[in-house]
Amino acid sequence: MDTFNDGRLIERLRSQLSPNSMLLTPDDLTPYERSARHAGGKARGVLRPATTDETAAIVHELVAAGVSFVSQGAATGLVAAATPTEDATQWVLSTQRLRDNIQVDPVNRTVRVSAGYRLSDVNRVAGEYGLCFPIDLGADPSVGGMIATNTGGARLIRYGGVRQNVLGVQAVLVRPAGQIVQALRGLRKDNTGLDWCQVFTGTFGSYGVVTEAVLRLHPLPRQSATALIAVSSVEAAIELLVSMEASLGEFVAAFEGISGAAIRAAVDHLPGAVMPFAEAPAYCVLAEATSAIGRDSGLDIDALLVAWLEKELETGSRIVDAVVDKPDRLWRLRHGVSEAVQSLGRMVAFDLCVTRSRFAALRAQAINLVYKHVQAAQVCDFGHLADGGIHLNMIVPTDTPPDTIRNMRSAIYDLTVNEFSGSYSAEHGIGPTNAAFYRRYADEPTVSLARALNEHFDPHHLLGNVRLG
Amino acid sequence: MDTFNDGRLIERLRSQLSPNSMLLTPDDLTPYERSARHAGGKARGVLRPATTDETAAIVHELVAAGVSFVSQGAATGLVAAATPTEDATQWVLSTQRLRDNIQVDPVNRTVRVSAGYRLSDVNRVAGEYGLCFPIDLGADPSVGGMIATNTGGARLIRYGGVRQNVLGVQAVLVRPAGQIVQALRGLRKDNTGLDWCQVFTGTFGSYGVVTEAVLRLHPLPRQSATALIAVSSVEAAIELLVSMEASLGEFVAAFEGISGAAIRAAVDHLPGAVMPFAEAPAYCVLAEATSAIGRDSGLDIDALLVAWLEKELETGSRIVDAVVDKPDRLWRLRHGVSEAVQSLGRMVAFDLCVTRSRFAALRAQAINLVYKHVQAAQVCDFGHLADGGIHLNMIVPTDTPPDTIRNMRSAIYDLTVNEFSGSYSAEHGIGPTNAAFYRRYADEPTVSLARALNEHFDPHHLLGNVRLG
Repeated sequence: MDTFNDGRLIERLRSQLSPNSMLLTPDDLTPYERSARHAGGKARGVLRPATTDETAAIVHELVAAGVSFVSQGAATGLVAAATPTEDATQWVLSTQRLRDNIQVDPVNRTVRVSAGYRLSDVNRVAGEYGLCFPIDLGADPSVGGMIATNTGGARLIRYGGVRQNVLGVQAVLVRPAGQIVQALRGLRKDNTGLDWCQVFTGTFGSYGVVTEAVLRLHPLPRQSATALIAVSSVEAAIELLVSMEASLGEFVAAFEGISGAAIRAAVDHLPGAVMPFAEAPAYCVLAEATSAIGRDSGLDIDALLVAWLEKELETGSRIVDAVVDKPDRLWRLRHGVSEAVQSLGRMVAFDLCVTRSRFAALRAQAINLVYKHVQAAQVCDFGHLADGGIHLNMIVPTDTPPDTIRNMRSAIYDLTVNEFSGSYSAEHGIGPTNAAFYRRYADEPTVSLARALNEHFDPHHLLGNVRLG
Repeated sequence: MDTFNDGRLIERLRSQLSPNSMLLTPDDLTPYERSARHAGGKARGVLRPATTDETAAIVHELVAAGVSFVSQGAATGLVAAATPTEDATQWVLSTQRLRDNIQVDPVNRTVRVSAGYRLSDVNRVAGEYGLCFPIDLGADPSVGGMIATNTGGARLIRYGGVRQNVLGVQAVLVRPAGQIVQALRGLRKDNTGLDWCQVFTGTFGSYGVVTEAVLRLHPLPRQSATALIAVSSVEAAIELLVSMEASLGEFVAAFEGISGAAIRAAVDHLPGAVMPFAEAPAYCVLAEATSAIGRDSGLDIDALLVAWLEKELETGSRIVDAVVDKPDRLWRLRHGVSEAVQSLGRMVAFDLCVTRSRFAALRAQAINLVYKHVQAAQVCDFGHLADGGIHLNMIVPTDTPPDTIRNMRSAIYDLTVNEFSGSYSAEHGIGPTNAAFYRRYADEPTVSLARALNEHFDPHHLLGNVRLG
């Protein structure tokens, strides 16, 4: 680090920013250096613009000084994509104070929202109009972070992920430094050129800093029915999914797979929770049906769900046991799984995805590989079965050598990608955590396109901590 | 054209292709030179590969010879994007014989399909599994054409457009010449890098030739209810849309606006059709609710639609008259509008879009502009009101000077884009038809990105007939 230039940059930034926009002392920096499931980094400083114009001014200064930076939303990601590198040279551009605009258009069913607002903020404001942004997950990410990560979650089968629900973006570019891209019209269709939403969604913040977005909103469910269903096998769970879709059509909102070990962990971990089944199941699913229409219309989602379950129980052998209960109670178990598993010891996590038709086979073979590498592992997998997603999380003995875990991960990723045409990171993204695997699996045309986009948007690689091209 | 090189290219192509893959005689070329709503072009020849490998071989040869070409699916587009230029130097690469693969995965709810299949083919095959690809429009485009155009249609409000429903693509690149991009895994989520579906969807075939795709399928509706509703004003129509969404939630499948002149044209044009209302309305909407669940479940969509209409009739003044009728009958009127209007005389067409909240104001001001430029025009607009889409089609006197029409178009586009933040081509794309307007409205960052992508994918501009960058 060039001390003279560093001092000059700080002076220039200070002269242009509102107070409180720049943090430099170690204590102030610490909260921005942490990372979930990953060693933290060290920031040179943190910049916290409150407006798009301030963001543009900051990016202009950083780029002029040739200084590297990483943008960070709520830092809830799981692949360290928003964490500064370890050498204390990178700045963090935090979007958390970008909260100057949150405005629902109830007729258009959209919200225009600054990137620093959280998912919960969007849903609080949208809820006042009977609307919601239907991304559902354990964390509470920022709008900017959700776009960068293309967040999925438990209701993807019904509503799609973030990519399907972003109608507009505003972003600050690195080249030309500080240029603002305005694509906030919020139209449902517009075939007049390249779609900036697609440039910024799921590209991990590599091509600019998203400062504002227009999101498509959906009606809030007015009724929902949930069942926890112990199944005879994972194959049976997939058959049940197809059967539920045939019987409950557009009401199917979630179909989450939970292994026996995972549900036991949640029950043990959550205060006051009890196992809903007489016998702990080998595998179960949380099935949810919802409707935006209230019961006063005559539509009774609970009755439809129960009728389907009864028909299944009468005619099939897929269901071992089933409990229909309040959504809150069952979702508490499901959402408790991740933390519960983590509390059991040393966790190793996977975020795989495959077509639904190959889900059961992939899961079985992947678990075999786990035990082949770590005999004493305790697999507690769960995930979004409706999308073919599987969080193959597990507890391994504390003294398991890092090499063993690396080899296991490598073998399971190879299996997923090469044998099953699946994804080694369905929801979480690349980031430093998966960078080596990106280099392993990304094919030549993909890397070559990423290189061309880097060359266009950020030729000196100043933005972000991973290079896709 | 260099005759020696031309002859050599033809020889090389002939030696590599199956018979019938190359057309050279004027009579054979004619069907590939026509264009809807646009003067035709002149092709040097037509190449009709039957497989991806043949496509790759063709692209390799064309690029090696430095020869320009345009890919063409079913040639149902409305902006001439698939039409060869007029100087008889461009080859047409027709994808219509790419029909070697159409395979439904009913568990994954996807179809893997070659680019030459038509929308109707996909729906016929998917229908055998109780599934459908829910793009609904008057034409019967090819899979490749739908991806290039990001086709919308009448059910976008419920299912999204093509972009939301493409899970995989295979494509042949121009650079490296003939390289095949394989991205056909068909996963619902995969955040491991750039998404090739987004590269090819809605980019008008500029970046390669899509040869195969994986499409997301949806359950076929098992019941549907439709009403044609005469409304007191266009503002009232928008209010009705919001009211219908509140009452019919996820069942709302279409909400199409039809002006009085357009419905009269359809009634007059279609054999045996009668005006469904006692008095011809000033504006009406076709509202549709559907469900993937059958009546045997107890759910009765017809009853819900009628209950909503009755409540509206009792409490509001938005509805002037309403007819609940068989979907086929009402959709025949709606789908007949475009052709009916065209049969009235010299048609001028627009494909605008705006947020729903500004729809009524844009329509009123745009129609004012029409009459200001062409006093004797007969506006017969219709469109996808639910998405803010308006096909502002009209009949103008045969002797209207081309300059007058150009000025009107220019003024209406300026109004739409500059005053209403809308789109001048919601569904149809750019193509030669809209190229001048693209140059007018596309901002610098958008053109600059397009230029970088051109540089990467097609530096010598051999593919397509319009340059976005």
